[in-house]
Amino acid sequence: MSKEIVTMAHGGGGRAETELIEKEILSRFGDGPLAGLPDGAQLPGGLVFSTDSFVVTPRFFPGGDIGKLAVCGTVNDLYMAGGAPRYLSLSLIIEEGFPREELGRILDSVAAAAKMCGVTIATGDTKVVPRGGADGIYLNTAGIGVKDSRWTPDRSRFRPGDRILINGGIGEHGMAILAARHGIGGEGVVSDCAGLGPSVEAALAVAPDAVKFMRDPTRGGVGAVVQEMMSGSPAGAELREADLPLRPAFRALSGMLGIEPLFVACEGRMVTVADADGAEAILAAWRNLPGGEFAAEIGELTETPGRVTLRGEWGGRRLLIVPDGEQLPRIC
Amino acid sequence: MSKEIVTMAHGGGGRAETELIEKEILSRFGDGPLAGLPDGAQLPGGLVFSTDSFVVTPRFFPGGDIGKLAVCGTVNDLYMAGGAPRYLSLSLIIEEGFPREELGRILDSVAAAAKMCGVTIATGDTKVVPRGGADGIYLNTAGIGVKDSRWTPDRSRFRPGDRILINGGIGEHGMAILAARHGIGGEGVVSDCAGLGPSVEAALAVAPDAVKFMRDPTRGGVGAVVQEMMSGSPAGAELREADLPLRPAFRALSGMLGIEPLFVACEGRMVTVADADGAEAILAAWRNLPGGEFAAEIGELTETPGRVTLRGEWGGRRLLIVPDGEQLPRIC
Repeated sequence: MSKEIVTMAHGGGGRAETELIEKEILSRFGDGPLAGLPDGAQLPGGLVFSTDSFVVTPRFFPGGDIGKLAVCGTVNDLYMAGGAPRYLSLSLIIEEGFPREELGRILDSVAAAAKMCGVTIATGDTKVVPRGGADGIYLNTAGIGVKDSRWTPDRSRFRPGDRILINGGIGEHGMAILAARHGIGGEGVVSDCAGLGPSVEAALAVAPDAVKFMRDPTRGGVGAVVQEMMSGSPAGAELREADLPLRPAFRALSGMLGIEPLFVACEGRMVTVADADGAEAILAAWRNLPGGEFAAEIGELTETPGRVTLRGEWGGRRLLIVPDGEQLPRIC
Repeated sequence: MSKEIVTMAHGGGGRAETELIEKEILSRFGDGPLAGLPDGAQLPGGLVFSTDSFVVTPRFFPGGDIGKLAVCGTVNDLYMAGGAPRYLSLSLIIEEGFPREELGRILDSVAAAAKMCGVTIATGDTKVVPRGGADGIYLNTAGIGVKDSRWTPDRSRFRPGDRILINGGIGEHGMAILAARHGIGGEGVVSDCAGLGPSVEAALAVAPDAVKFMRDPTRGGVGAVVQEMMSGSPAGAELREADLPLRPAFRALSGMLGIEPLFVACEGRMVTVADADGAEAILAAWRNLPGGEFAAEIGELTETPGRVTLRGEWGGRRLLIVPDGEQLPRIC
């Protein structure tokens, strides 16, 4: 039955989604820029192109809302694909009866985030569906960027000893959504939702040649992203549990709920693979950014292609197993 | 109350939608490429950019389905903005429980339409929402095209005496949807859903300098599009009811139901304003295309800026009044 219908797991960023995408999307569209499923497509002529739809619930959460998320999400995908974001489209699917005042607040947030990220909303579309045809409002953004000449994502350059870096505390977006949705004690857990421009600029300013790959760990979190980025690459990876940067409020809540931080979504973080030579300079640059004090090296690349292991807090090593679906749906 | 919530009329392509877009969208984003609300944005560097979400019900209808519509809709917007379509993004919002088999058929249709229109699906996204969070499946496409050097949409060139042309019978998409949705006798009414590439090429091949404006009359139909294109232009327009090309099956059904053909959506037609010198050549070229036998001149531009009149079948003349909403929602 699970093969015959689409389930929530198919949208969760885990193995079920990978199966759906491979079977339904790559089988039909995978011989062009979609091959390898980057966050964004590199097009001939130096353009980068990406899209995302946003169905997050609740629509307003500590640290952001669906409007900010819709801008930052696509902006970040363009950065991760090696681009500098320039233009966004904005498409709205609105449920009949949706409050105009709330629509206005969401669009204000889109405008503010676009300004902060330095992108222009260039074109758009609005559809209204009858009551029950959507959960309030869904947003889609697509983005165009220009290729950044300083670097290109290239997993074929992965080598054992390369460092795996992250620009801040992990899992904060997913945990903020969880806390907001269930009214549990999430005081102090604020979504990391943000544009990645400053972090990308900081890394490229100090060590452009060292940067081999960047990916924002959204659905599926750091764990799923690392698993995915190592798949088919010439190296493996070992993450170090003790080095995962967890803000105190996040650590308290994830511990209390028994949630594995590695699989909780971020919306303003980037997992970066960099040559060991440049890693310290990148970390230092990130730590100078506002909120960058939790930037950390969280692991390194290893010899066995495709294998991802986790060195536990107390020294044991185990294979990293990505969950089938996701602990928490609709985080973006 | 209607000012405080979003209603179905706000998505219907009529005056309510214009109000919503002006108040909520243009007020925030209208100082860039969105000014003037073209179907697609012309970006610096010779790019054209457009987006549309598709929520049509039923998803399969005579002449097409939501997948074909999603490709043709954005391809056509790029053409209308003066571009030649190249790349599309494809974003899916799928309701939990949606049949995989139907998803496969829709994606097959996307692939076939993309091939026919000569565009590449370059990037994408998939979201799953819980049961009740969508009506089956919604698609979004965004498209990138390159500016066609042979012409530029330019309403400032409108002059009294310019001809208003259309490349085929009107209203067939909306009527096919209506018939399919309500199980009424729509035999023979088939959606005109198609890419506009052949019609655009045919017109530009014979009279590139004559073409001043093209717009596909989707939501709101020919009537709303003509009203919109004349607004703020240096001319007015008179449409001739007797010259509106109606296929017999469409004429029979619209007559029986008392539906005004001018406000029924097309998805493979283009209202074109052309200099009188080139009009006949364009019509002749269209009539040589498959299905082009209903191409027609439906009116001409007049002296009074912004005013749109309709000369009735029996000779009377009246102001064209665009409905507040739309007779039939969710046609795309």
